[in-house]
Amino acid sequence: MIERIGKTIILKNKPTIIGYGSIVGKKEHEGPLSNEFDEYIDDSYFGEESYEKAESKLQKSAVENALKRAGLSSDDIDNIFAGDLLNQCIGSSFGLREFGIPFIGLYGACSTMALSTALASIFVNCGVANNAVAVTSSHFCSAERQYRFPLGYGNQRTPTAQWTVTGSGALVIGEGDNSPYINAVSFGAIQDLGITDTNNMGAAMAPAAAETIAEFFKDTKTNAEDYDIIYTGDLGRIGTDLLYDLMDEKGYNLRCRHADCGNIIFDIDKQDVHAGGSGCGCSASVLASFVMHRFEEEQFKNILFVSTGALMSPTSALQGESIPGIAHLLNIKIDTK
Amino acid sequence: MIERIGKTIILKNKPTIIGYGSIVGKKEHEGPLSNEFDEYIDDSYFGEESYEKAESKLQKSAVENALKRAGLSSDDIDNIFAGDLLNQCIGSSFGLREFGIPFIGLYGACSTMALSTALASIFVNCGVANNAVAVTSSHFCSAERQYRFPLGYGNQRTPTAQWTVTGSGALVIGEGDNSPYINAVSFGAIQDLGITDTNNMGAAMAPAAAETIAEFFKDTKTNAEDYDIIYTGDLGRIGTDLLYDLMDEKGYNLRCRHADCGNIIFDIDKQDVHAGGSGCGCSASVLASFVMHRFEEEQFKNILFVSTGALMSPTSALQGESIPGIAHLLNIKIDTK
Repeated sequence: MIERIGKTIILKNKPTIIGYGSIVGKKEHEGPLSNEFDEYIDDSYFGEESYEKAESKLQKSAVENALKRAGLSSDDIDNIFAGDLLNQCIGSSFGLREFGIPFIGLYGACSTMALSTALASIFVNCGVANNAVAVTSSHFCSAERQYRFPLGYGNQRTPTAQWTVTGSGALVIGEGDNSPYINAVSFGAIQDLGITDTNNMGAAMAPAAAETIAEFFKDTKTNAEDYDIIYTGDLGRIGTDLLYDLMDEKGYNLRCRHADCGNIIFDIDKQDVHAGGSGCGCSASVLASFVMHRFEEEQFKNILFVSTGALMSPTSALQGESIPGIAHLLNIKIDTK
Repeated sequence: MIERIGKTIILKNKPTIIGYGSIVGKKEHEGPLSNEFDEYIDDSYFGEESYEKAESKLQKSAVENALKRAGLSSDDIDNIFAGDLLNQCIGSSFGLREFGIPFIGLYGACSTMALSTALASIFVNCGVANNAVAVTSSHFCSAERQYRFPLGYGNQRTPTAQWTVTGSGALVIGEGDNSPYINAVSFGAIQDLGITDTNNMGAAMAPAAAETIAEFFKDTKTNAEDYDIIYTGDLGRIGTDLLYDLMDEKGYNLRCRHADCGNIIFDIDKQDVHAGGSGCGCSASVLASFVMHRFEEEQFKNILFVSTGALMSPTSALQGESIPGIAHLLNIKIDTK
């Protein structure tokens, strides 16, 4: 039912993605993945009085879209695994309170989509839950206010800065046939190489991604060529280059089989997002739309999905602390007919 | 291996508490549970430059104490489940980064100790991990600054306010004999009855505790009298009275078999803590010391431990939102010889 090799947890009962849902903001809808998403919002407030309330509504909408696709109601869900970037994770607690589903709150910064999906998959694989939901969100405006400055200040962004994605993605994990399933998961350990620049998150997270991917290759005796593609969450341009260098040092060439959700969700130069997209909602919305569609079209049969998070806070940064990074991994497969 | 009845998850492989560790502050050491704790600190800074860094060190110390008692090193631990009250959970990420253990970050506000222990127990029960650690912490000074005002302001506290415990508790879950084990767990759904007073957390959390306990009684066809005692996390005096009323309405009398960790960690009147203790570190430090000692002395053989959390943030409160509550439950047993 479960086999553990090193840090890698093989899920032999094939917990399956039986539903997925996504919603993004206007800028994300204007990007290259435009029509992949289920829904988009024109208004950053999503009809609410604050960006935080809008973010809660995004998360609720993504879950509703995923439940609808799975043909289930909230009563059919045994546990929901959720988190976001807002202080005290209010995107999740306020967005999901009406569903009445036993709630497992997570904090993994931008790594939360892989974290929530990994836990939901383990629950379903082991019979702890019949159906479980994994969801996360981020919102450019609420993240800017909390981590940097309110938008009205007109703060200048450094070239290494990334653009927090406004969006949410949700998966329903259950038993199913002919759909992509979570074959294996790996939880990363915290990696901290001493990066202190909070405007260069990609650099802080790249070592964690490299460590988690290399450990997975070692545990499973595989290499980059064994996968159709390896997605990282939101390393952006700078973090991606660092990841390649770090993987080279470990003896793995990732270049030909890698893409970063933060690099593909925006047209980086035309949309002026500097080093790329970021935020929990980045990898979540790309996974729960574009990636799922590629599985449906049989372009993907076996991929790695590695969400990456920076576990710092504005307080720790002001106190001179470095930025701990983390990366959790999903191996998603579909059985060929 | 697992049986799910309603929201209740029965863990048939008896994941066992093979180690526990605690550390508290000066005020907690001066309270009624004084010598139950492994360690205490006289200096709120714990030799560090900030309260936040002190809190990280508390969490690290609690884990070290628990590992020592289990006779294990960090290399023996497959996963660590942790969270705290600080923004972006920096108590956990900074406190635990040096251990190198695959890290699962949680946010359940003050419910985190039951949340982390429940997940660690499921992992061990299902063979996902051989050994797993659950830990959480809080610190009066870092919590006051973040949620209310910096201490230097000399802010007045309302009679309903609770005193955040400075402390941390950790459990090591693994395979073992003759020690208390986690017989069942239950994850609560979010309950929000519209309380908006952020100085009355007990009232906001009591409905969640009542719901989780009543559902567990229903699922397992048991009653308060079937347990030696039922601990709640940090409802304090006011929340406890509300819990009794809410349970009366549901047809259960909890009065004779209930204690609240927030009520027993301090001498409420003499120590001027108003409505009682609170914080993730409250139920964690009481569980990983006093409660474990009662099992060792065979005073307890079958208890419920229900940590309670308020999933609000200062931002949501300022935006006029009510306070969502949550409560997760552990059924801890020891086999009688």
